[in-house]
Amino acid sequence: MKKITQISTNAKTGVSDILRQMEGAGFGAKRLGIAANILENMIRDKKCTKFMTVAGALVPAGMKGLIIEMLEKKWVDVLVITGANVTHDLIESFGGRHEQGNSSVDDKKLFDKKIDRIYDVFMPNSVYEKLEDGLAPILAELPKKEMSSREFLFEIGMRIKADDSILKVAAKNNIPIFCPAIADSGLGLQLFTRAGVDAIHINNLLDIKELVEIAWNDETVNGVFILGGGVPKNFVMQAMQFSPKTHRYAVQITMDRPEPGGLSGATLQEGISWGKIGKNAEYVDVICDITIALPFLIAGLNERLKE
Amino acid sequence: MKKITQISTNAKTGVSDILRQMEGAGFGAKRLGIAANILENMIRDKKCTKFMTVAGALVPAGMKGLIIEMLEKKWVDVLVITGANVTHDLIESFGGRHEQGNSSVDDKKLFDKKIDRIYDVFMPNSVYEKLEDGLAPILAELPKKEMSSREFLFEIGMRIKADDSILKVAAKNNIPIFCPAIADSGLGLQLFTRAGVDAIHINNLLDIKELVEIAWNDETVNGVFILGGGVPKNFVMQAMQFSPKTHRYAVQITMDRPEPGGLSGATLQEGISWGKIGKNAEYVDVICDITIALPFLIAGLNERLKE
Amino acid sequence: MKKITQISTNAKTGVSDILRQMEGAGFGAKRLGIAANILENMIRDKKCTKFMTVAGALVPAGMKGLIIEMLEKKWVDVLVITGANVTHDLIESFGGRHEQGNSSVDDKKLFDKKIDRIYDVFMPNSVYEKLEDGLAPILAELPKKEMSSREFLFEIGMRIKADDSILKVAAKNNIPIFCPAIADSGLGLQLFTRAGVDAIHINNLLDIKELVEIAWNDETVNGVFILGGGVPKNFVMQAMQFSPKTHRYAVQITMDRPEPGGLSGATLQEGISWGKIGKNAEYVDVICDITIALPFLIAGLNERLKE
Amino acid sequence: MKKITQISTNAKTGVSDILRQMEGAGFGAKRLGIAANILENMIRDKKCTKFMTVAGALVPAGMKGLIIEMLEKKWVDVLVITGANVTHDLIESFGGRHEQGNSSVDDKKLFDKKIDRIYDVFMPNSVYEKLEDGLAPILAELPKKEMSSREFLFEIGMRIKADDSILKVAAKNNIPIFCPAIADSGLGLQLFTRAGVDAIHINNLLDIKELVEIAWNDETVNGVFILGGGVPKNFVMQAMQFSPKTHRYAVQITMDRPEPGGLSGATLQEGISWGKIGKNAEYVDVICDITIALPFLIAGLNERLKE
Repeated sequence: MKKITQISTNAKTGVSDILRQMEGAGFGAKRLGIAANILENMIRDKKCTKFMTVAGALVPAGMKGLIIEMLEKKWVDVLVITGANVTHDLIESFGGRHEQGNSSVDDKKLFDKKIDRIYDVFMPNSVYEKLEDGLAPILAELPKKEMSSREFLFEIGMRIKADDSILKVAAKNNIPIFCPAIADSGLGLQLFTRAGVDAIHINNLLDIKELVEIAWNDETVNGVFILGGGVPKNFVMQAMQFSPKTHRYAVQITMDRPEPGGLSGATLQEGISWGKIGKNAEYVDVICDITIALPFLIAGLNERLKE
Repeated sequence: MKKITQISTNAKTGVSDILRQMEGAGFGAKRLGIAANILENMIRDKKCTKFMTVAGALVPAGMKGLIIEMLEKKWVDVLVITGANVTHDLIESFGGRHEQGNSSVDDKKLFDKKIDRIYDVFMPNSVYEKLEDGLAPILAELPKKEMSSREFLFEIGMRIKADDSILKVAAKNNIPIFCPAIADSGLGLQLFTRAGVDAIHINNLLDIKELVEIAWNDETVNGVFILGGGVPKNFVMQAMQFSPKTHRYAVQITMDRPEPGGLSGATLQEGISWGKIGKNAEYVDVICDITIALPFLIAGLNERLKE
Repeated sequence: MKKITQISTNAKTGVSDILRQMEGAGFGAKRLGIAANILENMIRDKKCTKFMTVAGALVPAGMKGLIIEMLEKKWVDVLVITGANVTHDLIESFGGRHEQGNSSVDDKKLFDKKIDRIYDVFMPNSVYEKLEDGLAPILAELPKKEMSSREFLFEIGMRIKADDSILKVAAKNNIPIFCPAIADSGLGLQLFTRAGVDAIHINNLLDIKELVEIAWNDETVNGVFILGGGVPKNFVMQAMQFSPKTHRYAVQITMDRPEPGGLSGATLQEGISWGKIGKNAEYVDVICDITIALPFLIAGLNERLKE
Repeated sequence: MKKITQISTNAKTGVSDILRQMEGAGFGAKRLGIAANILENMIRDKKCTKFMTVAGALVPAGMKGLIIEMLEKKWVDVLVITGANVTHDLIESFGGRHEQGNSSVDDKKLFDKKIDRIYDVFMPNSVYEKLEDGLAPILAELPKKEMSSREFLFEIGMRIKADDSILKVAAKNNIPIFCPAIADSGLGLQLFTRAGVDAIHINNLLDIKELVEIAWNDETVNGVFILGGGVPKNFVMQAMQFSPKTHRYAVQITMDRPEPGGLSGATLQEGISWGKIGKNAEYVDVICDITIALPFLIAGLNERLKE
């Protein structure tokens, strides 16, 4: 057995060093330290297809920059994301803003001021006009055929002008983005209200087909970095369900609890019973607000993987 | 100001009485008591379109019976549900079983025994064969046209033989079921692997169209009973976003926290800023495991609404 | 393996029946159903010394009535409680009130109105004058000797006039109340500011002595019903630590998580490693707001134990 | 309104820089960034008496080093702590060890191996013999008079030989340590079983007296850094209750929820209604596992406060 490390720092202690010390401690610290190691191993493994899933309001909260950074560095091969994050990414691409707000507030007054609240982030409702105006010319150019969400988002990403866009950076780098619940979002609403249901034909079963083709590849191993739960987590996990393959690496960060039984809070260990996580996989659940854990993990990985 | 009630019970105290006393107490008790009142008001309001959203593994956990009961009593006009719950409902309809298990278990051994774990519920992996066998003849009969998930699930529900089926009871009672992330489920996988992507064309944008037509009706008011978060919650909430209408009644039960900022844990109050919940709505968040709160709420409503 | 029960209710379904059905379901429902059974077994076991621990603001929230009910029915042999709950019990005994309030509120305005907030319960700060006035004549009568908190609270309880008082009902029924952190409370402050440190000499090591004498009795078995964590939980658990005895029955209700490692959120299973919970004990953790779970548990026990 | 910062890092990004960027983001990131600023302001404020409260198993988890670091740097003027943390500090001082373990484990086997589990930290039960042997000569030297826990812990701290001891470092630096629930701990048990109740007379009302004298000083302002809830949090908060003074600075880190109403999860804002937190105070609640947040906060403060 290994003695618990008493963590110590000084004015020069870097993030990677702290994560390394955490690995020798207990509780959440240990889990975060292990997460850094697994992510490092996953990125260094040339045979690994690296999935990332993104749920929760990460773009409004200021995590878009880190997601883009990961895409640009090729730390992600496949991104599975909620419609809400796609919508907020588009809003920013078309000139809309998210503002620092306050969670202890009178929401009736916000409604009167036409400000939408996302916990402590404020967004003027007028961003939806920017979304509409920005989307209109793009949608007009799109083929009318039935598409996967992946193909649809690639077509949009190729037409985004802003540089700090998840969709654009992914498209430029040929990183597929899957959005299996795309109808469940402001973007979905726009597609319905503006383009009309006759113009856009997204069939998410095509996403299953495309994702499974990537995930079942005989010559690769799989790994997944799960930010929040929801559809993105399940979509990447279920891709392994009837495959002889499993995830060899898995890190999830969530604040959801396992005891109420929903998949979002389910431990990765549970995934072993389903054949989603490998019996010999490296995996860890980090119970933490993603906006706290992610910046330190990415900074630490930058230190370790620089060359 | 109203003095806190000290709750008291005896051998004959019924559920509705306890809920009424809870309303006069504090913390979770008060919230649950208020929830019972709002649900009662919502059901008694003849002009109210009653939405219910279902996320989390409620069918495996034994809540299917209560959901069916609510459908049969017309306490629900529109159901929005996850693909997972549809899948587990179908599995039971085709003779598959969920078993009582244990959450402190070696998942590697479960994998070897081909048992899938959902927290403390076990399910033999062989149920997926039953699902496949049960679905095959039904899918063969379905039209090849593009459909909403609502239409697709109605067509399936009409062909289910088992009586204790959410899909069948809803179909028989003409209660629409929307599943905006249907691809993200065991059912979605079956549709892809067995029917093939050429056979089934589900377009979830059609679901938006159908749901919005119900929700924007000038002659009704809206109410929503939210079980868990995820896509179902958001899908019903977003339907109000660009409407002059709002939800007049809203009850949510969840264990997710608001502070990490995701929609699943967001308070209903936050929805007021967006125009999803009305400024004068009756609403309450119950912070509780759904499987604990729901049976008592339904039993209490049965007492109050019997006639 | 046992098939999951689909819970069903009607207008006449009683609380005990629901709890019994819950036992056959999954997740929180199952845990609550098992909790009812364990508590029933514990109460029916004539050889069992039944400990109850109370933390959290249960008296302000309206749970005082249920605690008193349990004392009167002899469902509790030893009560371990926080100083805060003792303080709020005394406040009500001396005519102070807790009022229904609101958690979304401007606390600066409450401060100006001299209203103390306990989540959604309000308490006028003036209750502390009632506490002082009520305590003064009682303290004047107390012996100046060094006492355990148990002896001190017994002496106070014997002098309370109000009938709906935890301290009085316990004293009348010779049920010892231990308060190992009595200094950490409004009562503690009053003892210091009013009686003066020379007047009252409480030595909590005497509480250990008295509690251990009860718990280590060769002719009894032990059981514990843990409401919240904190000092009361630990104090009853540690009493078993160097004893050949353990708790044969244990139920805890808490919303604290285990992962951050604190004792309040620790699972009962962890207690087995320490020898606090028996290897063959009946035990269950219920992850629930106490104010939701407790009323139903007590009502169900009333049904089952009436004779 | 201020636009949300999209956080970015590179291989050289330091902890303080990340915390500064977090302050410009949303959700937990923003709260942690603000926490760093408040702690910095509190430490730089020469008139501020800096309280720190410590609950949860922070010593076993590897946070002892950081606590000692804060004491040595005089970032803490008064420490209020649980008996458990004092006990684990003493255990390490007397040669006992905490080991890295595992939370998914068979606790019956641990019991057979005489290993006590603290979530994922293991401790051989034999450490209690070291505690007894280490304490015996120290206790023999102590005065038999009635003492506060503060005086008692100072007397012990002065006699500890190990350097990496919270008690010793505090004693050497004349930093008072209060332990208002000292009986509720392994140390308390040792005092009872070994020294005997006639030998040690700790009166925690004396702690109130001593703490209030520090906190009510007219020439200082107060600030508090709350790690976990429990008795330490309440003890420092209640010290302000009947004082014209309040806390001018307050940071708390906890995973407990506010909705169940207990003080451990109560927001700092609630403390304003009680007059514990000032109406113009700088305060923030960080919802995070302490073992994750603390190392980064301390490293960031080291960067900012070095000279």
